[in-house]
Amino acid sequence: MRTPQVEADSTLPAEITIYEVGARDGLQNEKSIVPAEVKAEFIRRMAAAGLATIETTSFVNPQWVPQLADASEVLGLLGDEGLGPKRPVLVPNERGLDRALEAGVGAVAIFGSATETFARKNLNRTVDESIEMFRPVVERAQESGLWVRGYVSMCFGDPWEGPVPVQQVVDVSERLMELGCDQLSLGDTIGVATSGHVAQLLDALGDRGIGVDRIGVHFHDTYGQALSNTLVALRRGVTVVDSSAGGLGGCPYAESATGNLATEDLVWAMEGAGVRTGVDLEALLTTSAWMAQQLGRPSPSAVVRALTPAFSTD
Amino acid sequence: MRTPQVEADSTLPAEITIYEVGARDGLQNEKSIVPAEVKAEFIRRMAAAGLATIETTSFVNPQWVPQLADASEVLGLLGDEGLGPKRPVLVPNERGLDRALEAGVGAVAIFGSATETFARKNLNRTVDESIEMFRPVVERAQESGLWVRGYVSMCFGDPWEGPVPVQQVVDVSERLMELGCDQLSLGDTIGVATSGHVAQLLDALGDRGIGVDRIGVHFHDTYGQALSNTLVALRRGVTVVDSSAGGLGGCPYAESATGNLATEDLVWAMEGAGVRTGVDLEALLTTSAWMAQQLGRPSPSAVVRALTPAFSTD
Repeated sequence: MRTPQVEADSTLPAEITIYEVGARDGLQNEKSIVPAEVKAEFIRRMAAAGLATIETTSFVNPQWVPQLADASEVLGLLGDEGLGPKRPVLVPNERGLDRALEAGVGAVAIFGSATETFARKNLNRTVDESIEMFRPVVERAQESGLWVRGYVSMCFGDPWEGPVPVQQVVDVSERLMELGCDQLSLGDTIGVATSGHVAQLLDALGDRGIGVDRIGVHFHDTYGQALSNTLVALRRGVTVVDSSAGGLGGCPYAESATGNLATEDLVWAMEGAGVRTGVDLEALLTTSAWMAQQLGRPSPSAVVRALTPAFSTD
Repeated sequence: MRTPQVEADSTLPAEITIYEVGARDGLQNEKSIVPAEVKAEFIRRMAAAGLATIETTSFVNPQWVPQLADASEVLGLLGDEGLGPKRPVLVPNERGLDRALEAGVGAVAIFGSATETFARKNLNRTVDESIEMFRPVVERAQESGLWVRGYVSMCFGDPWEGPVPVQQVVDVSERLMELGCDQLSLGDTIGVATSGHVAQLLDALGDRGIGVDRIGVHFHDTYGQALSNTLVALRRGVTVVDSSAGGLGGCPYAESATGNLATEDLVWAMEGAGVRTGVDLEALLTTSAWMAQQLGRPSPSAVVRALTPAFSTD
């Protein structure tokens, strides 16, 4: 059955924008390597289900992320459907931006870190060096008229450094905004955030002039907290939420099968609370069930498992 | 790693009472039948992990729930540890109460339904008839000095009737309170509640004089909403939360493996938010991992899966 919508939840916004990360953040962290044709079909189906903003792929070095080595091929298969301001691609550096520009994309995302250890492990640089690496990427992207998103990863905890001080996240966020990013995505890369921490970070960013209209939130469900944390952010006025169709994507730094907040679980919560998402849940469920079949593993999304029993773990 | 506790979440109570239902609601809905010795050991371990209130079993007709046919045996094994006001047992009717009194328990729970269809299917009675069946149970329990809890099941949706009107739930709740129940537990038996609906029901109960100090909430995670819904209730002043160690228990009326809110996922959220639960998470994780081994299936709790990798599904 569907969730009974009794009355809109007045503590939430009337409408949210889902920033769908399943094709990039999701597939990047899945063990299987999915053929380019399947990826293109996945993106087409998600768009048809009403997901307006879809991060399509990453122009990262294929040696580092073999799962996304076919970025150009996927965009080639998608044609115009894979381009425009609502089809961002991740670009780690200027080399990635060159490839993205060559493909004709309309939006890019850079991937920063709030912690020194993760900056070293993921970018092989200090935080300072990574900001300098991003500077020409953002400048050139802007010159080309692209929309630019700045991810801040490890915003709450880091597997090597433990809890991450809020002020450290604010500092990195501020520097990414100063480079010229249009939007920040605050990432709980390892899923350790809880409600008070989320509120505290948003408040601290607001105090430094980074308002909720420039912020997206990106929670992982490693410890079952993703949806609760998202609702905390929505109650503070955030309206952009990252999620992954079917909950695709593990967390590479936690010993757990759970990954991103599942788009279906988010849409279910929003439908019940009377918040518009533009998503057709039935169509998205069919898409995620199909993708689970491609990956050969059941979806970690509770809604997908409850409503498409063929893919349940039982 | 553990969740970083940065700052208490001032929107939540300072302390909550976890009403642990794993041994009853959890095991009742598991496919496996667990030996009485294992159940007693499970309850002892949960108590040692700091769970103060534990529903131990149900004196239901063994023909209906063979999983709990050993209620007297489990209480016999537990001795004084299984008795007192913080060790309720479920009693469906006077026959169940007789057995509970014989066992010497200090608290009982009755299991009402907000919908006619579920009352018929679960109790073989109309809602009116079930209230009359409960009347002597509550009266006699009170005469014997027992604490009495009244469950209201299907408070948000019902698999046969669909959405359940809030006023209908309020009516049944009021009648159970009039019988003399000390506490109500509002059950989302099939997991379809969302945030606005939870708030609306609590407000409607408050309007009829049933305050949050008499209310516990009981959410199932079938659609991934259990923790979010719990936090909505806590923000409205509820301080009693039902949960199940390891997330034990399927939902018999949904095609999904997910059951009750997992106690570990709740405790994790509370630790991060600076809310006292009295639970030692490490000890509880060890207990749930051990219980998962007994049941031969991985725990559905995200926290258990993340922190006890031997029982993950991968």
